[in-house]
Amino acid sequence: HDSPATEPAGKDPSAIALHSALPRFLRWPQPPRTVLIINKPHDEPTRVAFLEVTSWLRQSHPSITIIVEPATAAEAGSEMLDLVVADNSEDLTRVVDFVITLGGDGTILHTSSLFPTRVPPIISFSLGTLGFLIPFGIGDFRTALQNLIAGPAVPLLHRTRLTCAFFRANGLRIVTDGLDTDLQAMNDIVLHRGRHPHLTITECSVDGEFLTGGIADGLIVSTPTGSTAYSLSAGGPLVHPAVSSLILTPICPRSLSFRPALLPPTSTIRLRLSRASRVQADVSVDGRDVHLLGREEYVEVRASRWGIPCVAKGDGGRDWVGGINRTLKWNQSFVNTFKEP
Amino acid sequence: HDSPATEPAGKDPSAIALHSALPRFLRWPQPPRTVLIINKPHDEPTRVAFLEVTSWLRQSHPSITIIVEPATAAEAGSEMLDLVVADNSEDLTRVVDFVITLGGDGTILHTSSLFPTRVPPIISFSLGTLGFLIPFGIGDFRTALQNLIAGPAVPLLHRTRLTCAFFRANGLRIVTDGLDTDLQAMNDIVLHRGRHPHLTITECSVDGEFLTGGIADGLIVSTPTGSTAYSLSAGGPLVHPAVSSLILTPICPRSLSFRPALLPPTSTIRLRLSRASRVQADVSVDGRDVHLLGREEYVEVRASRWGIPCVAKGDGGRDWVGGINRTLKWNQSFVNTFKEP
Amino acid sequence: HDSPATEPAGKDPSAIALHSALPRFLRWPQPPRTVLIINKPHDEPTRVAFLEVTSWLRQSHPSITIIVEPATAAEAGSEMLDLVVADNSEDLTRVVDFVITLGGDGTILHTSSLFPTRVPPIISFSLGTLGFLIPFGIGDFRTALQNLIAGPAVPLLHRTRLTCAFFRANGLRIVTDGLDTDLQAMNDIVLHRGRHPHLTITECSVDGEFLTGGIADGLIVSTPTGSTAYSLSAGGPLVHPAVSSLILTPICPRSLSFRPALLPPTSTIRLRLSRASRVQADVSVDGRDVHLLGREEYVEVRASRWGIPCVAKGDGGRDWVGGINRTLKWNQSFVNTFKEP
Amino acid sequence: HDSPATEPAGKDPSAIALHSALPRFLRWPQPPRTVLIINKPHDEPTRVAFLEVTSWLRQSHPSITIIVEPATAAEAGSEMLDLVVADNSEDLTRVVDFVITLGGDGTILHTSSLFPTRVPPIISFSLGTLGFLIPFGIGDFRTALQNLIAGPAVPLLHRTRLTCAFFRANGLRIVTDGLDTDLQAMNDIVLHRGRHPHLTITECSVDGEFLTGGIADGLIVSTPTGSTAYSLSAGGPLVHPAVSSLILTPICPRSLSFRPALLPPTSTIRLRLSRASRVQADVSVDGRDVHLLGREEYVEVRASRWGIPCVAKGDGGRDWVGGINRTLKWNQSFVNTFKEP
Ligand SMILES: NC(=O)C1=CN([C@@H]2O[C@H](COP(=O)(O)OP(=O)(O)OC[C@H]3O[C@@H](n4cnc5c(N)ncnc54)[C@H](O)[C@@H]3O)[C@@H](O)[C@H]2O)C=CC1
Ligand SMILES: NC(=O)C1=CN([C@@H]2O[C@H](COP(=O)(O)OP(=O)(O)OC[C@H]3O[C@@H](n4cnc5c(N)ncnc54)[C@H](O)[C@@H]3O)[C@@H](O)[C@H]2O)C=CC1
Ligand SMILES: NC(=O)C1=CN([C@@H]2O[C@H](COP(=O)(O)OP(=O)(O)OC[C@H]3O[C@@H](n4cnc5c(N)ncnc54)[C@H](O)[C@@H]3O)[C@@H](O)[C@H]2O)C=CC1
Ligand SMILES: NC(=O)C1=CN([C@@H]2O[C@H](COP(=O)(O)OP(=O)(O)OC[C@H]3O[C@@H](n4cnc5c(N)ncnc54)[C@H](O)[C@@H]3O)[C@@H](O)[C@H]2O)C=CC1
Repeated sequence: HDSPATEPAGKDPSAIALHSALPRFLRWPQPPRTVLIINKPHDEPTRVAFLEVTSWLRQSHPSITIIVEPATAAEAGSEMLDLVVADNSEDLTRVVDFVITLGGDGTILHTSSLFPTRVPPIISFSLGTLGFLIPFGIGDFRTALQNLIAGPAVPLLHRTRLTCAFFRANGLRIVTDGLDTDLQAMNDIVLHRGRHPHLTITECSVDGEFLTGGIADGLIVSTPTGSTAYSLSAGGPLVHPAVSSLILTPICPRSLSFRPALLPPTSTIRLRLSRASRVQADVSVDGRDVHLLGREEYVEVRASRWGIPCVAKGDGGRDWVGGINRTLKWNQSFVNTFKEP
Repeated sequence: HDSPATEPAGKDPSAIALHSALPRFLRWPQPPRTVLIINKPHDEPTRVAFLEVTSWLRQSHPSITIIVEPATAAEAGSEMLDLVVADNSEDLTRVVDFVITLGGDGTILHTSSLFPTRVPPIISFSLGTLGFLIPFGIGDFRTALQNLIAGPAVPLLHRTRLTCAFFRANGLRIVTDGLDTDLQAMNDIVLHRGRHPHLTITECSVDGEFLTGGIADGLIVSTPTGSTAYSLSAGGPLVHPAVSSLILTPICPRSLSFRPALLPPTSTIRLRLSRASRVQADVSVDGRDVHLLGREEYVEVRASRWGIPCVAKGDGGRDWVGGINRTLKWNQSFVNTFKEP
Repeated sequence: HDSPATEPAGKDPSAIALHSALPRFLRWPQPPRTVLIINKPHDEPTRVAFLEVTSWLRQSHPSITIIVEPATAAEAGSEMLDLVVADNSEDLTRVVDFVITLGGDGTILHTSSLFPTRVPPIISFSLGTLGFLIPFGIGDFRTALQNLIAGPAVPLLHRTRLTCAFFRANGLRIVTDGLDTDLQAMNDIVLHRGRHPHLTITECSVDGEFLTGGIADGLIVSTPTGSTAYSLSAGGPLVHPAVSSLILTPICPRSLSFRPALLPPTSTIRLRLSRASRVQADVSVDGRDVHLLGREEYVEVRASRWGIPCVAKGDGGRDWVGGINRTLKWNQSFVNTFKEP
Repeated sequence: HDSPATEPAGKDPSAIALHSALPRFLRWPQPPRTVLIINKPHDEPTRVAFLEVTSWLRQSHPSITIIVEPATAAEAGSEMLDLVVADNSEDLTRVVDFVITLGGDGTILHTSSLFPTRVPPIISFSLGTLGFLIPFGIGDFRTALQNLIAGPAVPLLHRTRLTCAFFRANGLRIVTDGLDTDLQAMNDIVLHRGRHPHLTITECSVDGEFLTGGIADGLIVSTPTGSTAYSLSAGGPLVHPAVSSLILTPICPRSLSFRPALLPPTSTIRLRLSRASRVQADVSVDGRDVHLLGREEYVEVRASRWGIPCVAKGDGGRDWVGGINRTLKWNQSFVNTFKEP
């Protein structure tokens, strides 16, 4: 359980995942025994891929227990495959050795939401259109899984997460359904006017000091991972996942000079909806609306101590270079003159 | 002396100043004995300030030796003040306990250039218009210097630097006047078309892997400190000095999609002037032209192991917030509706 | 009544207000007899100003009939002042000689919405914080109104408007409450995801030709007047009101290369919500939500033949320069070095 | 001859090419008798194309006189082909009925520079990589030229130009080699620090009124045609050639809020190098350096009365849509989800 947000964990250096201190390779102390498979729902190619992956696992690694979400079990026909259906009361962190995701970027974001504390290693396979967070194509699943389960050491990319908590004007923590523990964000925490036609007015402070006032559609606090999500669309820079930082990016601000800013990973950012704001504001975590912030209420965001170890293709986050060039089409030259040597 | 650039020091984690590992406060093991004072030249208010600072030092701390550059000595009338004139053959790092700068941002950049390896703590005073890198106004010099010399502990802000080296097409290091040791940059290393009317074409790679091709006026590799210098003008984000990273920002690229990118502090960035480039390119370090890069020649940039300990006003780089708001006028709202609480 | 949108009026050059052809000065053929006064509602300073303006009009120009909206009448106490209350069935265009607005930018936008066809000259007074569209402060109302009513010739700034119409997938015009005539926009027509967490997917075509596909929070089609409203927040350029054009600006696009574009004033822009879009999209006109666009439905936007003649302070749109510098704080230098000559 | 710049021609509406007033189709009153062919020099494919075009012209239209520049004649072997070599003293405007360009965008820019006043229709063919200003590929030259010479009516796209003149601090016109007549720019007039490491400081005024102060690498005044040249690289919007306007775009300004601005086509823009500027500034016209501006000297820029009639493929500037999508890769979506209907 996290320390209370009012005593900013940002000040505790141990709470910040120091990239240099995290293992760059995954080595199992003992063979993995349980896998959680997460599927994009209602998608026929994903269902087919799921069946192929599970049969291969059954045959190649019969001792490994396969856990799935209820929806996946229902779609697949669970009896036949001897799947264990995850139940909400269970602490997945305790029982799952690694996670396989099948689908797009949303599938990993969903997986992140299932682990409020420590996250087991995740290996992700894309189906169809390439996801930015997904290094492996489904065609390679046999080699990739075999390497992960039995290979000597697969490279890991640690993705930091954000954690957030909500407070009333009087400083009391807001505890509602789903908000009683700190929420974890892999991409971003976004405050947005949503359906309201009018601008939000937000007071933004860092480590208790006033930073700036935002009159805008909204504000994004993003991880380096999320730098290529909403923040990018709003004009933010590309940030390599190994650059420890919190990215503050405004969404359509009423200002000519609200350039995106990168803050230290130890910062606690507070976004307080101003008394002068005509409207309430939606707060979303990785794209899911979680709270409607009232005037003078605030949300506190800081780096989480629980990052996500993602199985990578290349060492040192090299997949990222491929991703920004191929998926995001970074720096496409106008004319055909530039040839890579 | 630095390790050869062909064996990228970036891979050696000890070469990267880990912010968390550096002392946040300056505590003298024994009283400082030698100060270097650096002046903005040909500026009457600076000359006057210099005389005030030196007389105060003479009276309050008579045992401290004062070193100055020849130009400063000449302007001031050195005999009278018992100043020691620095001579080029001397290793300033060995003899100087701390540095005082009087002037604008350029004065600190110049000071950085005097220390190719370890840099002593620097305290900077602005004269007239506020410099972004300068937390103290000249009016406060007595208190600030007294605190620094005799106070229990003053806060430090560690600013990382970049180091660069030049190579011929065949990989041989270019050793010319002033280029025989790795150069140190506090702000940035800039490749630019300069006087040439035509675009430069540059191949940019990271840790030996091709990253992107730049057809542009130029490319900037910047420190977080330099993020508010040329990189900002070219569209880059604001980066807090405690965010360890290298910032790659294009200058007027022939591309709609060349968004600035933040790379890990362990990266070695190579900028190679393409064979297809019609023109040579100026390379400058902190605004000083240091080399005219020919076709197929390249410059290699990485984080230096020698950062700069700057005496700060507030702890944890808080001066930065004031600087971006007051000096850079960050996020100025259009209308008068936003009031700080 | 406008020509049907399916036969794009853009092709008819007479439909486009040619700035050069419009009168640059207002000269009354005969003294104005009727004024419409529009108030920002529920605002005490505005109510007070309204009373001052009406009493001055009563005394100085007793023959002028004063029309107001019902809400204004109610707030003011209409009997006493001998106000005529506008009723919805009336064609204001026919009876009103000029309009006075008291309030912020929103008040002029509201006024525009009251005139679906020809708009009489509008003179606008700001109360409190400066509005960008408002050249006059309330303090100057006597001189300004006297000049307008009796002076030889006051300068006019013609602001173009947009007109839009909605269509089903099958091309049938959508006729619903308030949508049976073409709507007029002074600022912009905005398609936005609104409350939906997911991106909108829009096909954008010009004069029947496919232009581009937008995957984004939304898209803005703006007038030059609206260039300083939402479009500016979304990254668009400043466009002087005398530059005849339609501005297309994306809101947070999933693309690195969706630069704002200026299209000819003769263009008809069609925004069609793609079949692939997961969500419906809100369409708003000058900030008022007017329609929820379903998949494959579209909105057609073009320059209106009915612009707005705004009473200006300086000739030739000079107020604009003051507005962008003072209200929008355009191009604020970092340092104090730049002094206007 | 142009009116003196001190009496801004911008005020004379007749000096502004009104797009709506210009012919949209080219119809010869009598068959064209003289063609000027402009080649990209020192390029073998262009030389070959030139020979093909001239032989075809000789055979299909033997009565047409072919004029070339001396360099082209030398490369081609002029005797054999019976080419007329242009000589500098001649007024090309008087003798040339139309122009063919073979090469890239630079070839059209060069052609523009040959016509200080009225420009004959230009048809442009690209060789190899597509130029943005060039609608025709060399493969289609026979059909395209036949249509142009004998066809009933080919569509024209009128591209406006800028004109500029230089002045000393005292207001006297600077008359030097090549500067004695107003220069014409098809793309842009650029003020830039060039080789100087320091920023330029410029006072920018419009129609005699102070507009803003630029502390920057430079400033661009661009035509809509030039909006896709340097201005685009510097962050400016895409402007359709039919949008009459002057675009002001800063190059790397020391300001967070210097958004590009579009000014009316009637504006006279004055860029004056400030007394406070530490350096002189290069002024270039369409990429050619033409003057080194001293402190307090200024350049005055306004729309030229002499635009360029370019033979277009589609009517109404439709080629532009193709160009921004294909050549400039405008709005490339990240993922493969968007399919044109
Ligand atoms: N205008 C925009 O760009 C908006 C973006 N979002 C982003 O969507 C995220 C939620 O994603 P989904 O559940 O998949 O929603 P979604 O289905 O609406 O898709 C958002 C898009 O972003 C991509 N994406 C997600 N995370 C990414 C990352 N880290 N890097 C690069 N691309 C990424 C997805 O592949 C998808 O194409 C939020 O965390 C937020 O960052 C949410 C709303 C608007
Ligand atoms: N268009 C631009 O913005 C250009 C910027 N530069 C920058 O100038 C630097 C050299 O500075 P000077 O020797 O003083 O040259 P300079 O006298 O030409 O001044 C450059 C300006 O940048 C400011 N500056 C310098 N470092 C800064 C920082 N880290 N953060 C915020 N502002 C800063 C200075 O106070 C000064 O106003 C280079 O390192 C480069 O980054 C150089 C050329 C063009
Ligand atoms: N993120 C943003 O910037 C958003 C902007 N808007 C804009 O708000 C407009 C509606 O305005 P209100 O009814 O007053 O809504 P509002 O009360 O929400 O205010 C919008 C702000 O924009 C200003 N504004 C309006 N038109 C302007 C113009 N042409 N130039 C400069 N500033 C202008 C107003 O003074 C006000 O400060 C819409 O047409 C849309 O352009 C609407 C939603 C979001
Ligand atoms: N960083 C940059 O983007 C720079 C751009 N330029 C531009 O180059 C122009 C001169 O062109 P060249 O003589 O060909 O020089 P150049 O050979 O250096 O090429 C400039 C590039 O811009 C392209 N270009 C030229 N005009 C264009 C237009 N109107 N729209 C789209 N692309 C265009 C050319 O095809 C070429 O790829 C200048 O007018 C200036 O606008 C000049 C210097 C730097």
